[in-house]
Amino acid sequence: MSSTVAPLTVHGMSASGNCHKVRLLLEQLGTRYAWVEVDVPGGQTRTPQFLALNPNGRVPVLQRRDGRVLTESNAILYWLAEGTPYLPTDGSQRAQALGWMFFEQYSHEPCIAVARFFCGWTGLDSSRRAELPRLRERGHQALAVMEQHLARHDWFTGPAYGIADIALHAYTAVAHHGGIALDDDSSIRAWLQRVGQTAGFVPMPQPDARVLERIGRSS
Amino acid sequence: MSSTVAPLTVHGMSASGNCHKVRLLLEQLGTRYAWVEVDVPGGQTRTPQFLALNPNGRVPVLQRRDGRVLTESNAILYWLAEGTPYLPTDGSQRAQALGWMFFEQYSHEPCIAVARFFCGWTGLDSSRRAELPRLRERGHQALAVMEQHLARHDWFTGPAYGIADIALHAYTAVAHHGGIALDDDSSIRAWLQRVGQTAGFVPMPQPDARVLERIGRSS
Repeated sequence: MSSTVAPLTVHGMSASGNCHKVRLLLEQLGTRYAWVEVDVPGGQTRTPQFLALNPNGRVPVLQRRDGRVLTESNAILYWLAEGTPYLPTDGSQRAQALGWMFFEQYSHEPCIAVARFFCGWTGLDSSRRAELPRLRERGHQALAVMEQHLARHDWFTGPAYGIADIALHAYTAVAHHGGIALDDDSSIRAWLQRVGQTAGFVPMPQPDARVLERIGRSS
Repeated sequence: MSSTVAPLTVHGMSASGNCHKVRLLLEQLGTRYAWVEVDVPGGQTRTPQFLALNPNGRVPVLQRRDGRVLTESNAILYWLAEGTPYLPTDGSQRAQALGWMFFEQYSHEPCIAVARFFCGWTGLDSSRRAELPRLRERGHQALAVMEQHLARHDWFTGPAYGIADIALHAYTAVAHHGGIALDDDSSIRAWLQRVGQTAGFVPMPQPDARVLERIGRSS
């Protein structure tokens, strides 16, 4: 779809969980959008053009036809979901959903997504890989908090699937790319299956062969 | 105030910016609350009692009289602010405010609050202090994004002061504790002054003398 006609344009990297969150919700909502692929490892988020769009230099960015811009994946999810079944109307449930989304960005993504990034997108001899044991330990701590919740609840967004599930699904589904296995997390594995069966679900595309080869040699 | 009569109880550490956010909004709203001081360095967030309240083992926690619990400082702010002037009603403005609050927890707090923690709450010979140069560099990057916004806008929450300002104020106001100066950030300094002049503003209490002494020797 051309960005001149679509009401929304997503600037994102397809292999990024944060970007895939936005794509998944847009697909499930059936909203028309254009996708502009951004080459983050190639430096495209550091160009003057991109920094004019998001001074924080991160993807995803959602651009509306009138030029207005939204940043931060979970804030974008919230904006897209207002007035839809993917966000509860009850204030307490909304706050619980937001609580899980802040948990995702503070306690989950910085371990699980960063471990995946180091395994797939840095050289096998990168000194940054020294952080992997600590990232994996903290990733398992975050997963334990999720497992405890899912032992008693089906979803993170309230009584039904919604944006907190989308936010937490993104990197949990690919935790193994960073060497973080879900062997001890049977409730999480069952929840991943439930998310995968929701209407309109689309999985995150696989990273390219070179990234997958590095991941295979990083465990 | 006793927690048996107050409608809300905050479990928090007074010298924590994340906890002070909640206190500041409650004071500005004029809401009655009880405050239960939690000794985080002393391990009180790791007890079975606390983990039953918040399995993620973090403060602040907001407990309602009916026992319901909310975690994550910015989700608590959002819940408290709904229907008040501290959160816009316009969907776009709410999403922008949330965007800044996710920015705060992902790009700002993990640098600026953690640098402050290392300077004030770890021994002068702690190996963790090796991370300070990198934390300070990233802290200045986050401040530069804020400075750019404030050069053209008065507030982060929309047209008026609100919860995104409260979230970003918490650790920006004490960035110097972590050795992060605001010398080049005149718009941020003016905004800090504006926040300090809002109705009902209360500053975060100073850390104790031992912490302040360590901070003084850490720059």
